[in-house]
Amino acid sequence: MKMIDLRSDTVTLPTPDMMQAIAEAELGDDVFREDPTINKLQELAARTFGKEAALLVTSGTQANMVSVLAHCRPGDEVILEADSHLQYYEVGGLAAVAGVTPRLIEGDRGRFTAAQVQEAARGEDIYFPNTTLLEIENTHNRAGGTCWTPSQVAEVAKAAHDLRMKVHIDGARIFNAAVALDVGVKDYARHVDSLMFSLSKGLSCPVGSVVVGDSDFIERARKKRKMLGGGMRQAGIIAAPGIVALNKMVPRLKEDHDNARRLAEYLGMFDGLKIDLSTVQTNMVLVDVADTGLTGQEFRDRAAEKGLLISVFGPHLVRFVTHYGITAADVDEAAGIIESMLPRCSGNACAIG
Amino acid sequence: MKMIDLRSDTVTLPTPDMMQAIAEAELGDDVFREDPTINKLQELAARTFGKEAALLVTSGTQANMVSVLAHCRPGDEVILEADSHLQYYEVGGLAAVAGVTPRLIEGDRGRFTAAQVQEAARGEDIYFPNTTLLEIENTHNRAGGTCWTPSQVAEVAKAAHDLRMKVHIDGARIFNAAVALDVGVKDYARHVDSLMFSLSKGLSCPVGSVVVGDSDFIERARKKRKMLGGGMRQAGIIAAPGIVALNKMVPRLKEDHDNARRLAEYLGMFDGLKIDLSTVQTNMVLVDVADTGLTGQEFRDRAAEKGLLISVFGPHLVRFVTHYGITAADVDEAAGIIESMLPRCSGNACAIG
Amino acid sequence: MKMIDLRSDTVTLPTPDMMQAIAEAELGDDVFREDPTINKLQELAARTFGKEAALLVTSGTQANMVSVLAHCRPGDEVILEADSHLQYYEVGGLAAVAGVTPRLIEGDRGRFTAAQVQEAARGEDIYFPNTTLLEIENTHNRAGGTCWTPSQVAEVAKAAHDLRMKVHIDGARIFNAAVALDVGVKDYARHVDSLMFSLSKGLSCPVGSVVVGDSDFIERARKKRKMLGGGMRQAGIIAAPGIVALNKMVPRLKEDHDNARRLAEYLGMFDGLKIDLSTVQTNMVLVDVADTGLTGQEFRDRAAEKGLLISVFGPHLVRFVTHYGITAADVDEAAGIIESMLPRCSGNACAIG
Amino acid sequence: MKMIDLRSDTVTLPTPDMMQAIAEAELGDDVFREDPTINKLQELAARTFGKEAALLVTSGTQANMVSVLAHCRPGDEVILEADSHLQYYEVGGLAAVAGVTPRLIEGDRGRFTAAQVQEAARGEDIYFPNTTLLEIENTHNRAGGTCWTPSQVAEVAKAAHDLRMKVHIDGARIFNAAVALDVGVKDYARHVDSLMFSLSKGLSCPVGSVVVGDSDFIERARKKRKMLGGGMRQAGIIAAPGIVALNKMVPRLKEDHDNARRLAEYLGMFDGLKIDLSTVQTNMVLVDVADTGLTGQEFRDRAAEKGLLISVFGPHLVRFVTHYGITAADVDEAAGIIESMLPRCSGNACAIG
Repeated sequence: MKMIDLRSDTVTLPTPDMMQAIAEAELGDDVFREDPTINKLQELAARTFGKEAALLVTSGTQANMVSVLAHCRPGDEVILEADSHLQYYEVGGLAAVAGVTPRLIEGDRGRFTAAQVQEAARGEDIYFPNTTLLEIENTHNRAGGTCWTPSQVAEVAKAAHDLRMKVHIDGARIFNAAVALDVGVKDYARHVDSLMFSLSKGLSCPVGSVVVGDSDFIERARKKRKMLGGGMRQAGIIAAPGIVALNKMVPRLKEDHDNARRLAEYLGMFDGLKIDLSTVQTNMVLVDVADTGLTGQEFRDRAAEKGLLISVFGPHLVRFVTHYGITAADVDEAAGIIESMLPRCSGNACAIG
Repeated sequence: MKMIDLRSDTVTLPTPDMMQAIAEAELGDDVFREDPTINKLQELAARTFGKEAALLVTSGTQANMVSVLAHCRPGDEVILEADSHLQYYEVGGLAAVAGVTPRLIEGDRGRFTAAQVQEAARGEDIYFPNTTLLEIENTHNRAGGTCWTPSQVAEVAKAAHDLRMKVHIDGARIFNAAVALDVGVKDYARHVDSLMFSLSKGLSCPVGSVVVGDSDFIERARKKRKMLGGGMRQAGIIAAPGIVALNKMVPRLKEDHDNARRLAEYLGMFDGLKIDLSTVQTNMVLVDVADTGLTGQEFRDRAAEKGLLISVFGPHLVRFVTHYGITAADVDEAAGIIESMLPRCSGNACAIG
Repeated sequence: MKMIDLRSDTVTLPTPDMMQAIAEAELGDDVFREDPTINKLQELAARTFGKEAALLVTSGTQANMVSVLAHCRPGDEVILEADSHLQYYEVGGLAAVAGVTPRLIEGDRGRFTAAQVQEAARGEDIYFPNTTLLEIENTHNRAGGTCWTPSQVAEVAKAAHDLRMKVHIDGARIFNAAVALDVGVKDYARHVDSLMFSLSKGLSCPVGSVVVGDSDFIERARKKRKMLGGGMRQAGIIAAPGIVALNKMVPRLKEDHDNARRLAEYLGMFDGLKIDLSTVQTNMVLVDVADTGLTGQEFRDRAAEKGLLISVFGPHLVRFVTHYGITAADVDEAAGIIESMLPRCSGNACAIG
Repeated sequence: MKMIDLRSDTVTLPTPDMMQAIAEAELGDDVFREDPTINKLQELAARTFGKEAALLVTSGTQANMVSVLAHCRPGDEVILEADSHLQYYEVGGLAAVAGVTPRLIEGDRGRFTAAQVQEAARGEDIYFPNTTLLEIENTHNRAGGTCWTPSQVAEVAKAAHDLRMKVHIDGARIFNAAVALDVGVKDYARHVDSLMFSLSKGLSCPVGSVVVGDSDFIERARKKRKMLGGGMRQAGIIAAPGIVALNKMVPRLKEDHDNARRLAEYLGMFDGLKIDLSTVQTNMVLVDVADTGLTGQEFRDRAAEKGLLISVFGPHLVRFVTHYGITAADVDEAAGIIESMLPRCSGNACAIG
């Protein structure tokens, strides 16, 4: 059975261009900083974001980890959204590796305000950790791929800087935000001290994320990366598709957004499915399936039996993600599969298909 | 000027009985477990709570820390109330020393339900820390000294145990809860794996807290205490007043509660002060001073100028705590001082006294 | 100028076979365990070492780190050789990330005895960390690439197991040891709980190391890898050359050893250079240059000017490493370069070339 | 049976003066810095050592821990003697709590040279932890209570400072060194950034150690102490005897040294006991009992049966410590007990008594 895989944009396979770039990549030992392809990617990334320097790492989790390690020390506190990836999905590394305490803000579709930052920040006190970092996730995964505008980022970053905190953007999907709002990624980066983005999500690379910031920060992050075992040798094979991605893959994210919108509107017509269309801003669709009488897990399993792969996102929540390789036709087929699972009549007597 | 000190019950000085107990204490080297006074206190504490063993530590923070270290490992996650002492006041040690991630529940006056625990707990997943501990604070400090009933504790503890988590009570003021609800501390302790209580708050000892639990747990906690530098030598001078406290000081907590109630009702009559009387369950009174036009800090400072010491608890929140040495007359005098600070007329034109 | 690069076997470029394997690799999302190439490499690695399971990581440092994290907890102690890679070159991660204390043994060319393990191990005591792991490095880098025999490993592993410790081999260059002694890598692996080897050193892959052990251990290591940000997506592009390496690249290590021997004997004839030939067992040559009057750094710099890259290994110590791509002729040319740097006459008046 | 307790100077009971000082101590809440007795002790300690500020902690282990936490961050490296207390007896806290790597120097009776520091220190390198602290133990416990002279400290401290490292003295028994060499403790303190000394060893207090340093350092240490749970309330009951100790107990340490010397010379005459008299510089005597055919543990147990308590210090090593309350007559009696345990004849046929 052919499967339509909407679990995540991380499942995207590299493009033929990327595979060719790998085959032709000039390689060298990056611990000695001699891999020309990595150097080229890092320069391109820094330039793209308007920052001094960049660092290739193996994952978004490692990108956030080296950033936190480079900004903070144990006993510090980072302000971040309650459902942010760093808090929710990164295996407790913030505490376990960095010794840093989360100070959580309840966001509105992943966003929060300068006033919330000011309230959350804590002054020096013998009882309190030191609040030294603000983290922003853009787009916000658990909120459904929702975007911060540059001016929203500017506002909270200013509040944080006024409190002598640093600001880091988890921009794993920052290009989705930039494309959705038709702004440049520099419009985000200029307000913050560091930012990371993923190569392996919407940009379709096989592996990798990149951290950008000023040179001192990147040097500290580089050493922390080595400590985590993230220092690699001829990782030009990872970097080569990254160069292709930055050069060619950004504009097509609009297709993913269009497809997600198309899917959301389609699914929104079905009884039993609840979708907050205000959150469908990029390439994700969160669907509350509680009214179908199924748990998220059951819903996911039934879809899988019919050839559609999606993710469980809560007890009654599932997530669909569009990405490179998924067409409008695939989306329609996916919606058709979901439709076929839903009750064909109303009332308690109805069976789930 | 004579000061009335309602900042905290930690300012209480030891009783004459306690000082005599110190003078007469038999001492020995507790690293060799040869201090008879410590041994006696620990046996008494274990018996009082119906647990196998007990351990004297220097503070509530250290009591919680050795408990977490004995129950958890880095990369674990503890479920606890969003404003709990362990999260709010313990200098980020949960992350910085134990490497443990907080998983926060928004409570109702410090309490939460089994359903909330079940929702917060996370199953095994490559992305998630392991949820291994539930922490309950009773009485809950930042909620205003509010109590859990034994059956409320039993309910959430069962939910946690069913999920294979351990349960720890931060019972720094557990005797206040027991006295307020007229129950025994064993009624709490029997539902949980470990519990700590403070000697130096309502019980009026100069220094110390005690952790109780089963023998294996206490042995692990003892070694962690040594690692933190909490292993002491002839600390019988700390333990001796603890024995007096457990034997004599518990019933008088009722006076503190009566005085807090008296104060709350008195203050509640003043314009500009907001008090939620439903939270005045033990020896604390939280007062929202926003309507006076003063910040908490300004309010605190003005009271201090007039001879009354209280604590700032938020931008517009102050806390009053009654304790040994504070009489009904002191409380009335304190209320009088506050009254003298308040506007003598109504309307915007009024000055704060 | 063409450079002869003997700094490390990590500078080796991948073979054409490897690049072809990358181009043809079937890929998938390894966080979902769906990358067929990674799965194949891991199965091959496990089979090669006679262990239940294997895990691909990005570096030897990460391989050791996830192994320590999977075996130990903070407050544990690992016995290892004083100059071992884990202690010397891994950025303090043993303490900083794992919280584990090193208990150092002074080895003889990197090796130590069961008696030394027994003396270093510490019983349970309130003052002591818990000695839970023994680490062996084979071949031993700082000793000059020296080998443990399987029976030497068996002896110290038995001593450690008798003391209820686990045993881990840092086998970054274990294939060099196996080839040098004409034994199988299983002859090492069978005595220990875990072992890691590097793909990116003598085996010539661009990136990666692999950890092997029993399935439970590997599952724990996998989660720790995720926490460090080492969880990758379509890392089949890293795994594909690893399969080529295990299938084809092991026997040729003998050439590297022959070349190292040839180089050592050549250099050993020069005045001013001291080489302990008993340590030239695999692909490394350590040379003491003190008698040339140069520091290691000066010696390295002069060689570089003449087209030969080597590593500084101590104030007066330099290291030469042979590897894939380095021929006997290259070695002779390297020796010639060194010769040209040495005094052309004897006595104090002589100049370094 | 009356026991002569030479296990450690930590078993010393407080003097009557001390108990009286406790009874009369003015107390207050030290978290608010309002305990006048603690403040007085801290000022006295700072003045005694010629430093800006001081901090009372509960143990030598905590004193070292807060000092390391205030000087270092995870991923740093501290140079210290291989058998120093911080490495050997502090439960692995250096790694587990501070994340700091030990860089060990093999000392000569606990001492090492500036050249050794220079060799151990490591420059900035992507592979290396940052060497930021030098730790000196004076007197050195495991070497037998051996002393550093002020000029020896000055020499290594200068070497460290030249390398931009900080210097900390573990002076748990610094007064023993000062009395033995007839120098002032300021003669040590002036060369270093921080120093800690114990109240509860030769100085005979029940509990406590004190850290001294500049004000900024002490403020950082104070916050770290709070994080470890070492912040206490009315700990004037611990501080009061500390004031007595600093004022009255220092000169009498000479008696302990005389008694240790007397004991060492007495024991040195017995066949089967080996004592290096060059290490008997203060209040300790290390005795190698290997030639008696007994292990250290067996030797200790037999002595205990006869009324003499000593410590095991190695497989065939035991330690005797003189202290307040131990007289010359006690020492003679102790030696008599040991004599009675030794073979009453020579040759293999002899029995241990």
